[in-house]
Amino acid sequence: MIPYASRIESMEETAAIVGSLFQAMTDPSIISFGGGAPAKEALPTELIGQLCQKVFAPGGRGVEALQYGPVAGIRDLKEAVASHLLQPKGIACDPDNILIVSGGLEGIYLTCQTFIDPGDVILVESPTFVHTVEIFDMFQAKCVPVQTDDDGLNMEALEQAIQKHHPKMIYTIPTFQNPSGRTLSREKRQRVAELAEEYDVLVLEDDPYRDIRYSGEDLPPIKVFDKTDHVILANSFSKIFSPGSRLGYVLASPEVIQKYTNVKSATNSHTAMLPQILCAEFFNGGYFPEHHKKICGIYRERRDAMLAAIDKYFPEGTKHTMPDGGLFTWAELPKGIDTTALLPKAVEQHVAYVAGEGFFVERDGSGKNCMRLSFGSNPPEKIEEGIRRLGDLLKNEL
Amino acid sequence: MIPYASRIESMEETAAIVGSLFQAMTDPSIISFGGGAPAKEALPTELIGQLCQKVFAPGGRGVEALQYGPVAGIRDLKEAVASHLLQPKGIACDPDNILIVSGGLEGIYLTCQTFIDPGDVILVESPTFVHTVEIFDMFQAKCVPVQTDDDGLNMEALEQAIQKHHPKMIYTIPTFQNPSGRTLSREKRQRVAELAEEYDVLVLEDDPYRDIRYSGEDLPPIKVFDKTDHVILANSFSKIFSPGSRLGYVLASPEVIQKYTNVKSATNSHTAMLPQILCAEFFNGGYFPEHHKKICGIYRERRDAMLAAIDKYFPEGTKHTMPDGGLFTWAELPKGIDTTALLPKAVEQHVAYVAGEGFFVERDGSGKNCMRLSFGSNPPEKIEEGIRRLGDLLKNEL
Repeated sequence: MIPYASRIESMEETAAIVGSLFQAMTDPSIISFGGGAPAKEALPTELIGQLCQKVFAPGGRGVEALQYGPVAGIRDLKEAVASHLLQPKGIACDPDNILIVSGGLEGIYLTCQTFIDPGDVILVESPTFVHTVEIFDMFQAKCVPVQTDDDGLNMEALEQAIQKHHPKMIYTIPTFQNPSGRTLSREKRQRVAELAEEYDVLVLEDDPYRDIRYSGEDLPPIKVFDKTDHVILANSFSKIFSPGSRLGYVLASPEVIQKYTNVKSATNSHTAMLPQILCAEFFNGGYFPEHHKKICGIYRERRDAMLAAIDKYFPEGTKHTMPDGGLFTWAELPKGIDTTALLPKAVEQHVAYVAGEGFFVERDGSGKNCMRLSFGSNPPEKIEEGIRRLGDLLKNEL
Repeated sequence: MIPYASRIESMEETAAIVGSLFQAMTDPSIISFGGGAPAKEALPTELIGQLCQKVFAPGGRGVEALQYGPVAGIRDLKEAVASHLLQPKGIACDPDNILIVSGGLEGIYLTCQTFIDPGDVILVESPTFVHTVEIFDMFQAKCVPVQTDDDGLNMEALEQAIQKHHPKMIYTIPTFQNPSGRTLSREKRQRVAELAEEYDVLVLEDDPYRDIRYSGEDLPPIKVFDKTDHVILANSFSKIFSPGSRLGYVLASPEVIQKYTNVKSATNSHTAMLPQILCAEFFNGGYFPEHHKKICGIYRERRDAMLAAIDKYFPEGTKHTMPDGGLFTWAELPKGIDTTALLPKAVEQHVAYVAGEGFFVERDGSGKNCMRLSFGSNPPEKIEEGIRRLGDLLKNEL
């Protein structure tokens, strides 16, 4: 028996949590509020079929789609990112600032491979996205939780944690956070960039939900306030184009992008070409605005259905967040309810959610009375029915 | 300026070599024997266009192609690997033994992430594939070269190196090796598996070229002789299907596959779905045998053209390997010729190759008079013209 690398043991606990959290999510008889998958109605399936025909038509990009490509991604997709996604948010950049990656998580992985040595401290939001923590554990970083308010990271707690723990990196999902659905305010975004510069800390801004905002005012990325290249912006096409395409991008200085490119080359050479070409054709062909309007309409309706159902069916004393976008709300139930213990009973009633405590790196029982509820993948009537079933179960627990 | 992780410095030298080796390979006015890309005529472009139409037709797999998928890969592609690629080689396995990865290199990356701690020794063939060494450097392993003969690794040198260096892993490309085109004999394959068991060393068998054999007798993978789970087989679809699809697979015990699956999850969640589905439809639809026959015919003709041209145009005293498959031959030129210094002059004459010394981890000038020549991407008349130009240059050097 050949021994595994020491990092395998470091990631064992989180890997088990990630595995167990997302169980029972694929059984079609279950109304699942578990996974973070987009609605199938929000996938541009028919359009992508048409774009495939175009790619493989005579004189098209068929050979390019099947041959090796550039490590950093194809130029027209990087240009699409710059002009359709970043420029409207106040970020002027050129393709040398951008690396195309195989999904948003790969941007986080590459950041760790490039910057994180074993033992480095990473400050994370409390709660935070458990799948990312699995990556941090693989790199044997030490995750330190920072308290969050209704408008994201608490700035006093953040500065104290920086002073106390001398972190290498701050990890934040500033917009419609996973799992909480909360959004970091404009003032706090500016302050995070200032603290990064002041204390010479890297900020990893993970922003996959920002482009599905359907109420409230758009906020600039933290990256907009970054004057000193302390902020790395990682984003994903999973929620606005397709998750199965495994596409994302990283925005950083050309020097940092070059390091990431070397690491990407030593991980999997480059991102698959056909998905890249289809995504570039989607944006540069002008299909995004209409698609965007459509999916925001779908998710707005589902969010409204879920929040109304929680208010109607969940026990008194329940609190929930009011997300202006994204796919999640976070319910805090009356003390004493144990959402981890309750989950098997919920699955018996053919409804599922993600129990809260897995999202807390504290591992001290924090979040035991919380649950993450995704309203992405079910139509309003199923949302109401699922929340009604959950509400009955919860009331029985009290 | 935030400091990079210590591994970034470890991989700097090899990353620079990988970068520089493959320069000037994309200029279409150059006859390039440099890159290891398949011939564009060997890509099933039209067929994949038809399979795309099938996937996105009503009732097809369009939504599956765009939605999140399983970390370990889709079941029908794993089944295709088991029945169309492994079973004919004498390997009986089921889908739990297989992980679908984003290209063959990702299988090597995942092996390192799962097994290699900084300072671990990896035995590599001399010469070996420099891109893999970049991965080993990223994991801060110590690469120790082992002498090779015309039929691959020298067994006495291998056993001595095991005894002296106590390696964690032996890395070998046993079939039509990159860069040499050499093939490990049947007896040596068995012996490598025995040594692995005897000394409790992992073997990483990287076998991307084995399925393009166009002369000689097929040899079993080392994995066939492995009774004790000491051999990990990593393979790629790049040479038999399409490199831009970034698809490969790893064969190992279910326990090891589970660890790789956790690491894959913490790297990029899963491999892109549309390429996986297209590849599964390609194999399970029965298209592979005819395609395979076609591409072997293309490469056989190109190999023959290259070997004949080398014999005709290269200076007296040149030796070259006689590959029965794959994409490369390896030319050893008269002493005194410096292929690294010659490359810019070759590019001026609009012809390119990969200089030999980058493939030697010795970094002591070994391979200075060698070059890797890929006959994959040029038709026979261009091969003759390019080799003629190179021959003229080489004769001028003497």
